[in-house]
Order: sequence, then C-alpha cells, then structure tokens
Amino acid sequence: MLETSPLAVPFPEMPDIDGVTLRLAHARYKDWDRADLTFVALEEGTHVAGVFTRNICCSTEVEMGREQIKQGQARGLIVNAGNANAFTGARGREAVEAIMAQVSDYLECPKERVFVSSTGVIGVPLPKDRAEAGVRSILTASPCSWRDAAQAITTTDTFPKGATASAIVDGRSITLSAIAKGSGMIAPDMATMLGYIFTDAAIAPAFLQQLLSDANSGSFNCITVDSDTSTSDTVLLFATGKAGNAPLTSYDDPGADAFASALKQVCEDLAHQIVRDGEGASKFIAVQVSGAVDNASARQIGLAIANSPLVKTAIAGEDANWGRVVMAVGKAGQPADRDQLAIRFGNQWVAREGRAIDDYDEALATAHLKQPEVEIGVDIGLGDGRATVWTCDLTHGYISINADYRS
Amino acid sequence: MLETSPLAVPFPEMPDIDGVTLRLAHARYKDWDRADLTFVALEEGTHVAGVFTRNICCSTEVEMGREQIKQGQARGLIVNAGNANAFTGARGREAVEAIMAQVSDYLECPKERVFVSSTGVIGVPLPKDRAEAGVRSILTASPCSWRDAAQAITTTDTFPKGATASAIVDGRSITLSAIAKGSGMIAPDMATMLGYIFTDAAIAPAFLQQLLSDANSGSFNCITVDSDTSTSDTVLLFATGKAGNAPLTSYDDPGADAFASALKQVCEDLAHQIVRDGEGASKFIAVQVSGAVDNASARQIGLAIANSPLVKTAIAGEDANWGRVVMAVGKAGQPADRDQLAIRFGNQWVAREGRAIDDYDEALATAHLKQPEVEIGVDIGLGDGRATVWTCDLTHGYISINADYRS
Repeated sequence: MLETSPLAVPFPEMPDIDGVTLRLAHARYKDWDRADLTFVALEEGTHVAGVFTRNICCSTEVEMGREQIKQGQARGLIVNAGNANAFTGARGREAVEAIMAQVSDYLECPKERVFVSSTGVIGVPLPKDRAEAGVRSILTASPCSWRDAAQAITTTDTFPKGATASAIVDGRSITLSAIAKGSGMIAPDMATMLGYIFTDAAIAPAFLQQLLSDANSGSFNCITVDSDTSTSDTVLLFATGKAGNAPLTSYDDPGADAFASALKQVCEDLAHQIVRDGEGASKFIAVQVSGAVDNASARQIGLAIANSPLVKTAIAGEDANWGRVVMAVGKAGQPADRDQLAIRFGNQWVAREGRAIDDYDEALATAHLKQPEVEIGVDIGLGDGRATVWTCDLTHGYISINADYRS
Repeated sequence: MLETSPLAVPFPEMPDIDGVTLRLAHARYKDWDRADLTFVALEEGTHVAGVFTRNICCSTEVEMGREQIKQGQARGLIVNAGNANAFTGARGREAVEAIMAQVSDYLECPKERVFVSSTGVIGVPLPKDRAEAGVRSILTASPCSWRDAAQAITTTDTFPKGATASAIVDGRSITLSAIAKGSGMIAPDMATMLGYIFTDAAIAPAFLQQLLSDANSGSFNCITVDSDTSTSDTVLLFATGKAGNAPLTSYDDPGADAFASALKQVCEDLAHQIVRDGEGASKFIAVQVSGAVDNASARQIGLAIANSPLVKTAIAGEDANWGRVVMAVGKAGQPADRDQLAIRFGNQWVAREGRAIDDYDEALATAHLKQPEVEIGVDIGLGDGRATVWTCDLTHGYISINADYRS
C-alpha cells in the first residue's frame, strides 16, 4: 500500500446532484479486496460532453466514447479500476460491449448512452466474466457516497479526489460535484486522467461540449506529472437538467459565465489534486510563464520546464538551480532570447537579462523551495503571452512506484 | 564521488595523432583537486568541423564556436570542466575572449582558430583569473595521455570515454582518436555532449563538415538519457592532414567511404559510452523501430519510447510491461496504427496486431530484461522507415545524482 501523498488535501463535503445515483461493486479486476467497479445512473434527459486522450494508441473505451459523445445523451457510466483494457484487440472490445448491453438493458436505453472507462494495466483484456458479474451485482446495490465512488475509481492514487462548486443560473442555484483519479502517466495535450463532473444545470449538448473544452484547456491540459500520456484519459461532464433552469445554449445566455466559472474552478481543483498525488511527489510546483509571444507559446515553455527531469529533481533537492530552468526554456522550441530572460523562485528574482542578479539572496530562494508549494516564474521578455502549468517534483518515490508497478 | 557505472567499458588503447598534443592544468573551477583544464595544440594546417546544441539558450562558447567553424581552421582547443559558463552575460564572454587571446598569442595564430568549450554548472561566470592562471601553466606543461585528457574533460561522468578507428585512404593508413564526456542533460536533436575527434587525414573543410554532420545524425543525435538538452553541447572534428593523403573533398573520392565508416564507428562508440554512463544507469537499452512511414518518423517514435519515464522505470524494474511501450508509440505524434503494432523484448515477440500474443513466454522476455543490455523492438507495420535510438533506464541513482548536483 502506498503512503498518502504529503501534498494530499481532504475530501470535500460534496452535495448530491439531482438525477445522479452512484453504486459500487467488487469485480476483482486485480487480486485485491476493494470496490473497483463504479456505476453512475443518470436520469432521462441528461446531456453529456467529453474530452479524451490524443494518444493514438488509445483504448477501445476512448474510441467508443468519442463516437458516443456525438449524440450528446447519457444514462449510465461504468468505471473499471485496475485494468485499462487498452491494446487488447477484439477481446477487449467484447467486454466493453457486454457491459454496455447489460447496463442499457437494465436502464432500457440505447446502448450508446452508456459510457465505459477503464484504467490500470495496459495490454490485459478486461475479464468479461468478472465485468459481467460485477455489473449484475451493482445494478441492485445500494447508493454510495461521492467519497466511496472517488475511492473506487482510483488505481495508484494515494487519496480520493473530489471537488464541488455552485452558481446561480436563471435564478436557480445549480451545483457541480466531480470526482477524478490519476497520479502517473499524466501529461497534457488532451484530457489527462479520468474525471467525471456532474451538474443539475440544464445545458444544450453543443454548448456543454464547448464549456468543457474551454475549462479543460486551462486545467487538465495544463498539468503534467511525467510527460507520459495515457491511452485512456477521459473527462466527461454530465448535466441532468434537474435544476430546471432555461437551458444554457451559449456564453451570451445569462448565467453562462457564472456556470463556466464554477466549472473552471472544479476542473482546476481536480487538476491540482492530481498533481498533488503525482507519483512520488513531495512538492507542488506552479510554473508561471509570462512575456512569451503568445499564450500557446507560454504553455509550451511552461511544459518544457515542468517536464524537465533536471528541473524536477532540482526542486526535489530544494536546490535553486535556475540554470536548469534556462536550459528547459532553451529546448522548448519556442521564441525566446537568452539575454531577455528573467527567472524567480517564489518572489525572489534570481536572474534577469540573461545573467544572475548580482546581489540576489540565494537563501531566500532556497527557503521558498523548502516549502511544499513552490512557484517558478519565468519572464520571456518578448510579448504578452502567459500561462501557468502545474507539476510535481521527481523523487525516489516515482522510481519506487514505477519500477515495480505490475507485480 | 560517484560509483563507476556498472555499464562502463575499459578505456581503449589509443594511438597518437600526428599534429595533436594534449596538456592539462588544475584551474580549480570547482573546489576539487583534479585536472579540469585541457589544452589541445594542433599543428598549422589543421581543418575543423563542428556540430552544436540547438538549445537556444546556449552558452557563449557555443555561439562563438558556431561562428569560428565557418573559417574551417583550428590551432588550439581549450576545454573547461566544472563550469558551463552558460547564461553568464558579458562577464562569461570576457573570460572566453581572454582565454582565446592568451592561447592565440602563444600559438601566434588568429584568435578564431582557438576553440573553447565549457561544461558544468550553468549561470556562474567562468572565473577569468583562474582560467588565465590555468592557461598560463598549461602552455608549458608536459604532454599527457588520451586517457588523462578524457578524464580531465569529465564532470559527472563515472568513467573516461575514448574511441579509435583507422582506415586506408589514398594508400595511407589514417587514424582517428577521440574523447568525449557526458552523462546527464543528454538528448538529441543536436550534438549532445562534448566530443572531440582527431584524425591525421587530410580533408577539405566543407567535406569535413559534411562527414561530421552525417556521422552525428546516426550516433550522438540518436541517444538520450533524460530528454534534457544541454546549453553547451559540442562535437568537433579536427583533421591535421599529417597522414599526407591527397585531401578528401567529397564522397566520390577513393577512401572517403572508408574514412566515413571509421568516423561513424568512433561516433557510435562514444555515443554508446555516454549512454552507458547515463546518470544512474543500470541498463543499456537499444530501441529498434522498424515499419515506420520513414526513417525520421522511426527516430521520433524511438525517442518517444526512449524518453518515456514509464518505459525507463519498467526496464529498471526488469518488468516486461510492453503496455508502456504502446503508450509511448501513441504519444509520439507520428503515424501509427494500434492494430498493426508488434513489440518484442530481445528476440521474444510479446505483442502483434494490437494485442498480446496468446502463448508468448513472459519468462523469456523477463529473462532478457535481467541482462545489462536490453533491446526493445517495435514494428509499426506501415512502411520501411527504421531507426535505432539508444538510452538507459531511469533509476534511484538518477534522482540521487540530480536532486543534489550543485552542492
């Protein structure tokens, strides 16, 4: 059993969402005694949006999910933990189709309204018999809490992850409750883990997708643990419509901004929790890039810094080795001018105009790095582009976890 | 003091090169008692070619070297160890210019024929006084051996690196002797460390550059330790012409292919030694990609595999977790079809056509991974493109070395 991350945060109080019911089962996808099959029943009329990994060797679940999203309706969600069912060929697909058939029979809905996600080991077909037995037991199980569901979808996570927010839309109080899992094989350029966001707001499917894509780009797509990109990453946003507001259809609708803001808050919160549970993480690192030629360039530079093993190990060693930050900026493949660069740790600027600041106080920079939350600021000095990328340090813990994951 | 890499190879017997003299000094760039300043005197008429890092935050030495290479002549080389003099502004440049002036005065040659390289910590200006004192003492020092010079240019290396080869050109026996350093901040898309290759062959400058660029693309540009790209990487090829052959001017000249082949052998040998000394390395990994749409695509896929922390930790754990190889192929951003992929460890194919081979013997794959030299084969199944990329595993040793490098 892995020790809980020192950066863990407590699971929040999470309100129920009208139209959403959670249930669990022990499918025993691995040799463990824990809930590893989660079922979310969604009432008729629920709309759904999704973002998925861009890894082209993606799982069957992701391939199917991408297709299913197009019709915009959802009635059920099944999440399997411990087996990613990726790269498993026809056998893997059979298991997913069996699950969809079972659940859609039970819910009396079209199969494509049942979404399936699986994470865990790659290359082992999801055992169809265990999945079917698990689903059979789950359909009649008692409802469970958000916390229990958040725990059941985890694999190598060391703490369950949840987030909630609310907004006023069309005079109604609407609520978002969300859970996520992920701690390794985390890199952006796509959704980066499993995340499920539920709201009682009424939102038209096309706008729901736009809202999710926008929230995703500044949250899940701005985190990285190890630069590796999962075959299974999925974020789904379900809107049951039970709050009874006039359905939102665009950013011009009153309340749309309030909803977007609440959604962004939930996505950032979950994204940060995933970084806080980064495999072996001892530091939560925010890389703030300013002065790039545009925001996309700032994000690429931020990712080059956040993914650099040498930067990440320096932070692990609480070493204000800003030279490694310079190196990472230089390899990002983005416009930068060495002699314009400025770098800070926390509030302590250590370099400006391409060289160390003569009288900078390394002790202050080092003191900042001794804290569990670290900020690296880089000003490129060329334009107005800015971005923040979040990551964690690279420690012995990452090696220990990943050099012996399967056994 | 770091323990010698378990993958180290013995330093070879290296013949002298007519026209090349090596000398050492203790400049004390760090608080250590070892030779850290290397001087190579080259006789009049020596031609030079070079390849340099593409990191845009490169050092002054690299900026100047790129310019100097254009005139094609060399008389001296100074290599500083322990201080990269990168990101040090005007003060860093002054130190380099002082060294060039001192050495060119001594050799009575134009300044631009004196090449300077520095590696080590980034961001600390090269101490001009120590450099000058070191150079003063070195100019009158006794000649040293290849092995001593190879040792003096190292920083975090755990063994000195040398390689030699010979060829017959124009009826003359010509010789190549070469030294290199590097064990971290190693990634391709440029020269990847410091490497100096000396030959007594007579070769015209333009062709010398072509020969080096060609040899570099399949050797130093096909290795990676940690995906990080140094600000200082440099490979220089010096040809004294003392062998007396009719100067080579193109691949059409008799003997040019023999020389190119010997050069390639030396570059590959040194490149492999750098990987063998990868920080914390316990396994030497060859990633062989075939069936890609073209060779460049195969190299990108190979690099995605070789740079994946999850692949590298799996190999460290001797775990035949080929799912992580699939993941890395999928994130490479290159054409691939999950359902055409085939993967092997050593000679043991483990996956074909997008799924595990039913009766593959995992024990055989695991047995292969228990060896210090590991081969990962990936067939993309789309075309004829192929490439081999070399890397090492990611272990606790890497974290230990890099979480506390400066102190």
